[in-house]
Formats: sequence, structure tokens, C-alpha cells
Amino acid sequence: AAHKLLLLPGDGIGPEVMGEVRRLLAFIEQKGLLSFEIEEDLVGGAAYDVHKVAISDGAMAKAHAADAILFGAVGGPQWDGVPYDARPEAGLLRLRKELMLFANLRPAICYPALAASSSLKPELVEGLDIMIVRELTGGVYFGEPKTITDLGNGQKRAIDTQVYDTYEIDRIARVAFDLARVRRNRVTSAEKRNVMKSGLLWNEVVTATHKDGFEDVTLDHMLADALGMQLVRAPKQFDVIVTDNLFGDLLSDVASMLTGSLGMLPSASLGAEDPVTGKRAAMYEPVHGSAPDIAGKGVANPLAMLASVAMALKYSLGRPDLADTLDKAISEVLADGLRTGDIYTDGATRVGTAEMGQAVVAKFETL
Amino acid sequence: AAHKLLLLPGDGIGPEVMGEVRRLLAFIEQKGLLSFEIEEDLVGGAAYDVHKVAISDGAMAKAHAADAILFGAVGGPQWDGVPYDARPEAGLLRLRKELMLFANLRPAICYPALAASSSLKPELVEGLDIMIVRELTGGVYFGEPKTITDLGNGQKRAIDTQVYDTYEIDRIARVAFDLARVRRNRVTSAEKRNVMKSGLLWNEVVTATHKDGFEDVTLDHMLADALGMQLVRAPKQFDVIVTDNLFGDLLSDVASMLTGSLGMLPSASLGAEDPVTGKRAAMYEPVHGSAPDIAGKGVANPLAMLASVAMALKYSLGRPDLADTLDKAISEVLADGLRTGDIYTDGATRVGTAEMGQAVVAKFETL
Ligand SMILES: CC(C)[C@H](C(=O)O)[C@@H](O)C(=O)O
Ligand SMILES: CC(C)[C@H](C(=O)O)[C@@H](O)C(=O)O
Repeated sequence: AAHKLLLLPGDGIGPEVMGEVRRLLAFIEQKGLLSFEIEEDLVGGAAYDVHKVAISDGAMAKAHAADAILFGAVGGPQWDGVPYDARPEAGLLRLRKELMLFANLRPAICYPALAASSSLKPELVEGLDIMIVRELTGGVYFGEPKTITDLGNGQKRAIDTQVYDTYEIDRIARVAFDLARVRRNRVTSAEKRNVMKSGLLWNEVVTATHKDGFEDVTLDHMLADALGMQLVRAPKQFDVIVTDNLFGDLLSDVASMLTGSLGMLPSASLGAEDPVTGKRAAMYEPVHGSAPDIAGKGVANPLAMLASVAMALKYSLGRPDLADTLDKAISEVLADGLRTGDIYTDGATRVGTAEMGQAVVAKFETL
Repeated sequence: AAHKLLLLPGDGIGPEVMGEVRRLLAFIEQKGLLSFEIEEDLVGGAAYDVHKVAISDGAMAKAHAADAILFGAVGGPQWDGVPYDARPEAGLLRLRKELMLFANLRPAICYPALAASSSLKPELVEGLDIMIVRELTGGVYFGEPKTITDLGNGQKRAIDTQVYDTYEIDRIARVAFDLARVRRNRVTSAEKRNVMKSGLLWNEVVTATHKDGFEDVTLDHMLADALGMQLVRAPKQFDVIVTDNLFGDLLSDVASMLTGSLGMLPSASLGAEDPVTGKRAAMYEPVHGSAPDIAGKGVANPLAMLASVAMALKYSLGRPDLADTLDKAISEVLADGLRTGDIYTDGATRVGTAEMGQAVVAKFETL
């Protein structure tokens, strides 16, 4: 049966990099490797301009029906003044929350061809391969109350609430332990138990889940601030890092920057597996943003978006073999010296979005 | 009149590095540069062992009376099991809160002699000089509710609350703008306004404060996750960074690690200036922790603690000239090749805590 895909290109460079996804999917179908039923809709500022919301109910219905969602990027200065609840990010947050995509997988890998572009010394990042597992539907992102109150006298009070329940921590810990088993078998859990009650509970639950059948995996606990330091000092000490929504946001951005592959990294946001059908809601998106400054110029780097398709092939479409081939194609195109502007260095071959996408497809065909 | 100092050595390497403070203060007095009235008390695990609290009311009274507090470090594995409210960190948090030390100044500077030890490429960190201004008495550290509730069914719920009022943001922004004026005149404010109401208010208030007489200072806003990235990518773009308690905790740790001077960096935590006396409560402490693994061996690096004394000379004791001399002494001792174990590299002269402290005093005398 055809796999139902929903493409949500979004804003800025989103539509351009999504164009390369279409090219790749067409190739995969044409080769008879998989077949797709492809829908498309608006999200972010693009949705706001038409519907006055950051994602319409119609698009949400398509998202619920999809086997996998491919998401570009949202946001841009032209929507800075829109009402808070309709800001571009609200579309992304609604998708995460309503589809219950609690597990955000953010690999931080260093492409050998790009090790020299890292701001870190090459020996510290060569071969780097970290998987950050970020809780994505809880914590301070969604906790209530979340308000700004006018206190009078020119004073306002803003409140955000970090809430975590045992089950939310347990299920993300299980994802981390499962991933570690097919990697280097080590999980580092990060929180601030020394100042946060949610950190205390996080630590307690991860420890308990570890004892519940995962004792073959090595588990360490690190304070989130210390982990931020260690990421910069010696990133290769980490295998899988599991942490909450807000710390995951920050730490995964720091980690992505270590690799010299900024704008090169994909992510997967997964829901729970249905015990009967084995299906799980899933959304795949590049870690980079909508880069309004270069949008529409045909120069954006499509590789993070294409690497996100690789994650979809692995986690949603039952074809880890094609995922590996695609990852290899990306790596080899880089090794051949092709570079978009964001990763250009002297002596490389400068290409645009479409040429890079074409090169990946061409390489994919040879592998 | 003599300056009242309170020394709180704390745990682990705290007492050792504080020993070098005593040596330095004695020298300063003996030279007739300043005179001191020095008190001392327990904090952290050391206080818990005697008083069953992380800081006693008696020590708090001395803290209130002091012109400046010099704080070592707290914590260690032997206190992992103590009640949450009596954990070593609680002493530090009580000092910050009760003395209303809302402004935490964390310089991230790169000592020329140590640039090569950074995990970043030397050209990215040579000459680095960032001042992180972290809000220290608000946000998720102190907001209520802060609870763990048993929901039954094996489920618990943890809640932490981030609260910020207009005046709290305004006063820390003023500290940042004032500091920028005597530096490179640029402030970057970091929050997550795209997901947090407190981020939205933060952004709004910093912008308003900027308009209230600080328009000569350049102000930028950056999302905290993006700032984490930029710190790793190109740290020299920053002058003063102003951010909330939790982001400041993480980002200052990342920044400190960039410098190759981990364990070398000081901090100042300041209260409001009394409009009549001009006095402000102030505490100075190294950014590093208590390092229980090397405690008691005489090998700890005292330079962050001594650089904290330099900050005290500048911000509390009215002697910015002596602060400069002390900073210079530290820099030159490093340039002479002296290294404690934590910063040792081939070809350097390995010294212990006391030798390093002596060397700084000797150098200070020559300057
Ligand atoms: C766009 C924003 C809401 C989002 C987040 O904070 O989660 C982004 O930074 C991310 O990491 O996916
Ligand atoms: C010890 C701990 C409570 C403290 C904090 O989180 O503020 C420390 O990490 C710091 O940065 O001073």
C-alpha cells in the first residue's frame, strides 16, 4: 500500500528545500522502491496569511491521517506582529502536542568532509555521533498557567509552568534506552535536580526505568549546565543524551553547532507506537530555521531536509536500508566537494539548492 | 575604616582555594593597601554536618553585615542523601535570595596563555571577553509552586514555576546596559519568547528599558537556543549578554568552557545599590564547583577564587586599580608557564594550590 505523506513546507527556505524532497520521492517511486500518496498544506506564516491561524484544522486532519509528515521551517520577520497564539511557531507546537510527538530525536553527527568547518578542533569532533532524545510534549512548553498579568503600577507578571508526570519521563527514558542498545549502549540523562523539583523527579524516574529491564545499558546522570560544558569540552564522551523539552532545545542546538554541520542536521518527532497496528505518528524536520534572509534565492542547503527524509525511511516507512543509502549519498556528495553557500570553503564546488538535491539523487542511484 | 569580609570556604576544594585568599588579603593588609575585618563561617555540606542546615542563621547574620562575601564551593557525594531543603546548594540559594543578589556577573575571558587549551580553534577565542549578566533571584529557581505531588497509581507530578515581574527584568537590564557602556557598548538579550510568556515579557521590558536612557548602547535580541549556537560558532560577536536565571546558568557554563579557562573564571553576585549609602550586598565566587575528587590534595587551581577577589576589589572595595593589578598578576603567572594540574600542558611548570597562590602574590608585589 502507498505510504501517506504530508508535506508542510512552511516559510522562508522551507518551500525550496521541500522541492528537493519532492524530487527525491519522485525518484524513489519511479524506481519502484516505495509508493506514496502525497498531500501538502500550509503551516506557519504561510498558513496565517490565508487562514489567520498558524495551522488550519484541515491541515491538522491531514496530519492525523499521514504515516509521516515532512516539515520544512516556519517564521520570518513579516509575522513578528501577529497575535501570540497565531505566531508561526504555534503551528509547529500544535502539531507536536496534538499528534503527541513526545520523542524528539536529534542526531548530532559530524560529516567527515565537514569536520574542518567546526569551530572545535577537528580531533574533538571527527567521528562525532550523538543522539539527543528530547522530550517534546511536556515541560515548560505546555504547562499551565502560562500567562502575563497586569499588576497595575506599570508592573506585569509573566508565569510559565514546568510540569512533568512520571509517565512522561518514563516513556522518553524508554526511547533513549532502546536507541542506546542499537548504538554504543550508553545514556546520559540531564536535568537540574539541584534547583528544580522536575529535575528531581526526572532523575528518580529515569533511574527507576533503567532498573526496569534496561540494566544492560550504562546510565549516567549529569546536571544540564555541566552537560553543556562537557558538550563543548569533549563531545565524543556521549552516546545518547536524554533530557527535557527546554534543556533539549538548548543542548541540541549547542550540539548541532559542534559538528560544523549547522543546517545539515535532521530530526524526528515520534509518538507512541500503537500496540495493535505498530503505527506511530511521526514528523520529520531539519533542525535549521526558515532563514528568511536567503529565502527564494535558490541557495538554501537542502541536506538537512533530505537527511530528515532518511529518518522517515528508517522510523516510519520500514526501509532502514534506503535510509542508509540516502545518508551515504549525502555524505558522498559532500566528500565530492559539493557545497551550498552556508558550508562553502575555498576550493569546494559551490552549488545551489536544486543542484545539491539533484546530486544527492544521482548519487543515491549509484549506491 | 576596615572592610568587613565574610569568608565561606564551603566544601571540597573550597577551603584550599580560600587559603590562598587569606594569603592574598594578608599581603594587601601588610602593604597597607586596604584593611579588613575578616569573619568566617560554614556553608554547604560543612554547615549541614554541624547544624543540619546548609547555612545557619548565624552565618546569614554575618553575611548581612559584610561588605563582601567570598564564597568557595559547595557539595559532594557524601551529602547526596540529605533532605532536599538542606542540600549543600540550598546554602548558596539562601544567600542569593536573602541578600537579594539579583545581578550575577560572569565574565568569560580567554587568558592568552590558555587560548591553546580551548576546545575551539584558537583564532575563535583569542582575546575573547564576554560578560554574561545573569538574573539570579527570580525565575524558575525560586517561583512557586515548586512541588512534587503523589497522584496515586505510581504517578507523581513535579511542578516548577518560572515567574518574572517587570521590575526584576528592568533592574537586571540596567546592570547590563551600565556594564556595556564601560565595555564595547553592546548588549544581547536572550530568552525564548517564541514559547515562554516570561520570554515575551523579558523582551518587552528590556526593549523599554533600553529606550529609557540607554539608546547609546546597541541592543540585540536573540533566542536563547540560537545564542547557545552562536556562542560556539563565533563567540567574539558578543560583548554583554543579559538573560534569565536558568538560561544564564547554562549559557555561562558553555561560555566559560569556550575560553579554555575552565575552573579559571570568577563571578560576582550583586544586590541593589543603597541610594543613601551607596552600599550593595555582594558575593564573589569561582564558577567551578567543589571538585570532591581532588579535594584535600593541595592541587586545586586557586586562580578563579583569586580572580573573584579581583572582582570584589572592583565592585565592593572601591579599588579597581588593585583589581587590575591582581588580574594582571594572574595573567602573567600563567604567561610564565605556571600551571596547576587542571590546566597543565606539556612543557609547563606544574605547581600546587599554595605555590600558585604564592606566585600570584609575588607577581602582584612586582606590578
Ligand atoms: C521554533 C521553536 C518553537 C522550536 C522550539 O523551541 O522547540 C525550535 O527551536 C526547535 O528546537 O524545534
Ligand atoms: C550549584 C547550583 C545551584 C548553581 C546554580 O544552578 O545556579 C550553579 O550551577 C551556579 O551556576 O552557580
